[in-house]
Amino acid sequence: MRAAIMHGPGDVRVEERDEPRIVEPTDAIVRLAATCICGSDLWPYRGFEDGEWPVPMGHEYAGVVEEVGGGVTRIRPGQFVIGSFFASDNTCEICRAGYQTSCIRRTPVGGAQAEVLRVPLADGTLVATPGLPPDDLVPSLLAASDVLGTGWFGAVAAQVGPGKTVAVVGDGAVGLLAVLAARRLGAERIIVMSRHEPRQELAREFGATDVVVERGDEGVAHVKDLTGGLGAHSVIEAVGTQESMVQAVRATRPGGHVGFVGVPHGVELSGRELFFSHVHLHGGPAPVRRFLPELIELIYDRAIDPGRVFDLELPLDQAAEGYRAMDERRAIKTLLRP
Amino acid sequence: MRAAIMHGPGDVRVEERDEPRIVEPTDAIVRLAATCICGSDLWPYRGFEDGEWPVPMGHEYAGVVEEVGGGVTRIRPGQFVIGSFFASDNTCEICRAGYQTSCIRRTPVGGAQAEVLRVPLADGTLVATPGLPPDDLVPSLLAASDVLGTGWFGAVAAQVGPGKTVAVVGDGAVGLLAVLAARRLGAERIIVMSRHEPRQELAREFGATDVVVERGDEGVAHVKDLTGGLGAHSVIEAVGTQESMVQAVRATRPGGHVGFVGVPHGVELSGRELFFSHVHLHGGPAPVRRFLPELIELIYDRAIDPGRVFDLELPLDQAAEGYRAMDERRAIKTLLRP
Repeated sequence: MRAAIMHGPGDVRVEERDEPRIVEPTDAIVRLAATCICGSDLWPYRGFEDGEWPVPMGHEYAGVVEEVGGGVTRIRPGQFVIGSFFASDNTCEICRAGYQTSCIRRTPVGGAQAEVLRVPLADGTLVATPGLPPDDLVPSLLAASDVLGTGWFGAVAAQVGPGKTVAVVGDGAVGLLAVLAARRLGAERIIVMSRHEPRQELAREFGATDVVVERGDEGVAHVKDLTGGLGAHSVIEAVGTQESMVQAVRATRPGGHVGFVGVPHGVELSGRELFFSHVHLHGGPAPVRRFLPELIELIYDRAIDPGRVFDLELPLDQAAEGYRAMDERRAIKTLLRP
Repeated sequence: MRAAIMHGPGDVRVEERDEPRIVEPTDAIVRLAATCICGSDLWPYRGFEDGEWPVPMGHEYAGVVEEVGGGVTRIRPGQFVIGSFFASDNTCEICRAGYQTSCIRRTPVGGAQAEVLRVPLADGTLVATPGLPPDDLVPSLLAASDVLGTGWFGAVAAQVGPGKTVAVVGDGAVGLLAVLAARRLGAERIIVMSRHEPRQELAREFGATDVVVERGDEGVAHVKDLTGGLGAHSVIEAVGTQESMVQAVRATRPGGHVGFVGVPHGVELSGRELFFSHVHLHGGPAPVRRFLPELIELIYDRAIDPGRVFDLELPLDQAAEGYRAMDERRAIKTLLRP
């Protein structure tokens, strides 16, 4: 099969590899209908993360089950399924509390930028759609695999709800889908922090009511101006840099909530600033599995259209161009068709 | 009047000073029945905080109102009142959300280790008891002014509740009263991290079910051993050092809650560790005012006896000895009688 392999920063190649096979009795083999490139894939692409090269890329996936191991009872061949970037048993105490990405048996799922994928702990990890989905829903279902679920978790972690003013730091796919999540969860006002016009546009279509183009302390000052000097009730951080985290904390009012879902790179938080900020801080790798059934239903009902974050679609063979387009911010997110 | 003044690290003197007078129409003048020395007073005493010397000490107080300004309508002379270390209007949006220590008009209250105290924003800040309290309740009412309210906020911030396992990092007065709060709030199991026998004893009387004497990673390992490898649901941090904060985060299970109420000194938190820990983090200067009516009622009903943390009582004139006893850990907390 064909698969996208990163050989080092800036060097992605699509190569022939052996098809994965069942290893554990709890595995499933999924033939992918679509996969995509994640903002987090850009960290190693840009040389900000050490990796053991070469590494098969991709952790977002949706497709049809081809085969399951002997221990799999809930998932069946022929089902269209979506899963998340960590496999989880969905039965341990941590999973039952809704933190499947910290499952005591969690295993990373990798190599999804390919034709076929092995998914461990299939019964716990995969959620089947009601039937084979119409083709136009596939991008949205694929988005549920990570970016939608992550934006959604950011909004839930930030305690978004009716009557609240929400600010979103970051206008990548996760930030944009955090806007969509905040709208669905009833936020009264949604401020997106973005300086890119096409992204501002999509943010507004997803439900943003205000755009703040400034960053850092100026951005914080603008959010405070918009909120009677107090700051937002809920702030979603969807970048992962020191600047964006500090901006998120400072844009939140005392007693408010920061949901942080950008994987932190070099972020150090001052205990004293956090203390006197009086904010609640919660985040981490999104337990997408918690939200998948609800998100699939909303997508099937066409109540949300998260697939719109894919503004570039390429055949898997052109994965390298997909990375370049995202790196140069020519594309928000690239969908790859195997 | 007599008042305790810190002239530099280790140098506390009780001196004659002018009695405070009404400055703003919203002020009240309170003749103190009791005051005390706070664990946080030890930071400058030990030279860990720069101050502008000399500085009048003390921020915990309970006593009888002598006089109020022309703008005070709710508080009246003759009432026995308790207040907190930040004055607050109790009407702004932040106060109404329960974060009175971040009131948009907040003002620090200082110089309470004295005979008489000026309290700004008296209507918002002070809570009157049902009548003049019996003398044996005064220590507990004084504890409500800060340490009890702070321990209580730590437990609330850590989302303590029925069925939960709680760990408390720190066996000072705040940590011990966090144990008491956790018990009142219905915790199933309360692990106190303490290596001092008399404090372990009091912790057990307040409701602790387990004692962990190890610190750092060993202490974390012991808490995990006691919780099926997962960590506690709720951890209250009541120290404020790098070691204690890291210990608190690591002793919490994914999805669990850390309530941190020790004023951080030199604490830097790794964004990446917080992210992958999946904990909720909330804390700050305790909005004691939020809890005062409830705490006063519990004390009046003799349902709780937080005054037991005062294991040394001295006349105000011997404040210096009170500081020494706490610094040398001979006393948990010193009550001073003006």
